[in-house]
Amino acid sequence: MNAFPEHKTSAHLTPSKAAMVPFVSVENMMRLVHHIGMQDTLKGIAAYIEDDFKRWESFDKTPRLGSHTEDGVMELMPTSDGLDYGFKYVNCHPKNIKSGLQTVVGFGLLANVDTGYPVLLTEMTLLTALRTAATSAVMAKMLAPKGARVMAMIGNGAQSEFQAVALQAIVGIEEVRLFDIDPTATEKAARNLAGTGLKVTCCTSAQDAIQGAHIITTCTADKQNATVLSDNMVGAGVHINAIGGDCPGKTELAEAILHRANIFVEYPPQTRIEGEIQQLAEDHPVTELWQVMTGQAEGRTSQDQITLFDSVGFAIEDFSALRFIRDRIVGSDFFEALDLLADPDDPRDLFGMVQRSHP
Amino acid sequence: MNAFPEHKTSAHLTPSKAAMVPFVSVENMMRLVHHIGMQDTLKGIAAYIEDDFKRWESFDKTPRLGSHTEDGVMELMPTSDGLDYGFKYVNCHPKNIKSGLQTVVGFGLLANVDTGYPVLLTEMTLLTALRTAATSAVMAKMLAPKGARVMAMIGNGAQSEFQAVALQAIVGIEEVRLFDIDPTATEKAARNLAGTGLKVTCCTSAQDAIQGAHIITTCTADKQNATVLSDNMVGAGVHINAIGGDCPGKTELAEAILHRANIFVEYPPQTRIEGEIQQLAEDHPVTELWQVMTGQAEGRTSQDQITLFDSVGFAIEDFSALRFIRDRIVGSDFFEALDLLADPDDPRDLFGMVQRSHP
Repeated sequence: MNAFPEHKTSAHLTPSKAAMVPFVSVENMMRLVHHIGMQDTLKGIAAYIEDDFKRWESFDKTPRLGSHTEDGVMELMPTSDGLDYGFKYVNCHPKNIKSGLQTVVGFGLLANVDTGYPVLLTEMTLLTALRTAATSAVMAKMLAPKGARVMAMIGNGAQSEFQAVALQAIVGIEEVRLFDIDPTATEKAARNLAGTGLKVTCCTSAQDAIQGAHIITTCTADKQNATVLSDNMVGAGVHINAIGGDCPGKTELAEAILHRANIFVEYPPQTRIEGEIQQLAEDHPVTELWQVMTGQAEGRTSQDQITLFDSVGFAIEDFSALRFIRDRIVGSDFFEALDLLADPDDPRDLFGMVQRSHP
Repeated sequence: MNAFPEHKTSAHLTPSKAAMVPFVSVENMMRLVHHIGMQDTLKGIAAYIEDDFKRWESFDKTPRLGSHTEDGVMELMPTSDGLDYGFKYVNCHPKNIKSGLQTVVGFGLLANVDTGYPVLLTEMTLLTALRTAATSAVMAKMLAPKGARVMAMIGNGAQSEFQAVALQAIVGIEEVRLFDIDPTATEKAARNLAGTGLKVTCCTSAQDAIQGAHIITTCTADKQNATVLSDNMVGAGVHINAIGGDCPGKTELAEAILHRANIFVEYPPQTRIEGEIQQLAEDHPVTELWQVMTGQAEGRTSQDQITLFDSVGFAIEDFSALRFIRDRIVGSDFFEALDLLADPDDPRDLFGMVQRSHP
């Protein structure tokens, strides 16, 4: 008995259809992004993220499971909506950059809850960059002061251009003001953003970068309690998108800013451990973003307010991105079939399958 | 800056060496098993499992993270020894068999703790079957009564032949007595074991199968509290290898047997939830297998004792199997290189890498 008997008739080593898992390589992910377009990819993922945040209560949620060392962390981020199950493996090793490696690499899986069989395996280094930027944009669209057109981008590493383009595509940002302690990073970001239609201004200090900015995005990589923004730098009426503070012992904002801001988070049990609010008392009031999206909580209530998205990255955002990719590769050639699952004709005959495969 | 600049000089879509992850497909896993030999593969994995149990305290341990539904479970099983990090994705859906699918499929990953970069991705449906059997054999060698030569195998599904051959190779079992409520499963197992050198006896009841057996292995798949072995069926001086009871609500043994047995477990926080001992009080005494291996606890102390390995499967066994595969594929053609990781020349230039890949 097999669900796909037509695939079992050829050589004994030919895997069945159920055994083959669609796999999106880095090359195919890049081809797919070019096919859809960078802005439309970010908009598409953002739409899936909004959908999933609006049905937040239907998800099986758990803080990510991290294996921490002095230099970094390896994490598993699973979630399920009862129909699909998804997880991402991702690391974060800030020191990697010194040896020419990425700080963050990852891959993800989507499986069918009904059978447990994987239905998509994909690179998630690029996809994480895309979904992180899309998430920022969704939240900024909801929380930023009306008419926000200028964003300061502090930290010009691998995530920075994705943030700028996502906020351009989804929030309507027209100018991005770049600053990084390493001027070559700023030059790189400015070069990459040259053709996007954004006005790009390179700045020589964080103070300079936030001049006139309605949205301040911090995305620096050092694993320490840093002060990328000090209290006196942040005026009224801005939205802060704090991305870099995302694991224990790694924060970017002066604590005083947190006390002046209305703080919005993805999933409190995770953010209290990993986010900027690890600096605060455990019962410091925060608002869950899904509740703002569903109208159960207030977002920005005045133009003068400081809103803060204390972004750490949550499994549901990866789940949204995985669903987006799964839906977009149907009928395309942006994937290959990977022989990942053993699937003998008789499911009880795994041993026989091995025996019969003898060369 | 890149660790492998020599790989970056060709077309802009050619991934670097660091971006490529060795991948072992089902086909290659089967080729590797034939290359090494089934018995030697089981012995090899068993040796790695023994090594890892003996250094149990050096591992980062956590109960597996399961997403449970009515029909099954999807699980992530991570662990790390500080040098390598490994995890397995695995499901368990007993109902799958009705639609011609495997009850359990899986795949696994090994990553370098220092960088977080994956170094091996492999199928783990077959590898899980191999490591589960190797684990049983390691524990039976340690706990079974001296001179054990006959094993009853109750439940003749996908795991059964692996158990028989592992116990033949590692414990010295000469006869296996098969029983399954479905006689076609028993016929299948008998057929598969025909060339192994084991004496194979097909039995018509569990009672019949355990006649004269020194080791009783239960490996049935129904997700329920079943009684595969009742109290009166189990005499003194046997070792029970209980494999099928491995998630909440799924047990195989009458509770009374547990009270007569000395119970040995992999990792109590997980086994108390998933194993046969979920039927017992939370403080019922159990012995950790690693402590027997290191001489810190006693194993079998008399020939008349009933020893019970309440097997649920722990992440360290997968880690051992992953290490074995990684070490065995070096310099071989039993893997392919998978374009899983984005690895731009400048690690901060992920966006530029995508831009430059424009077709």
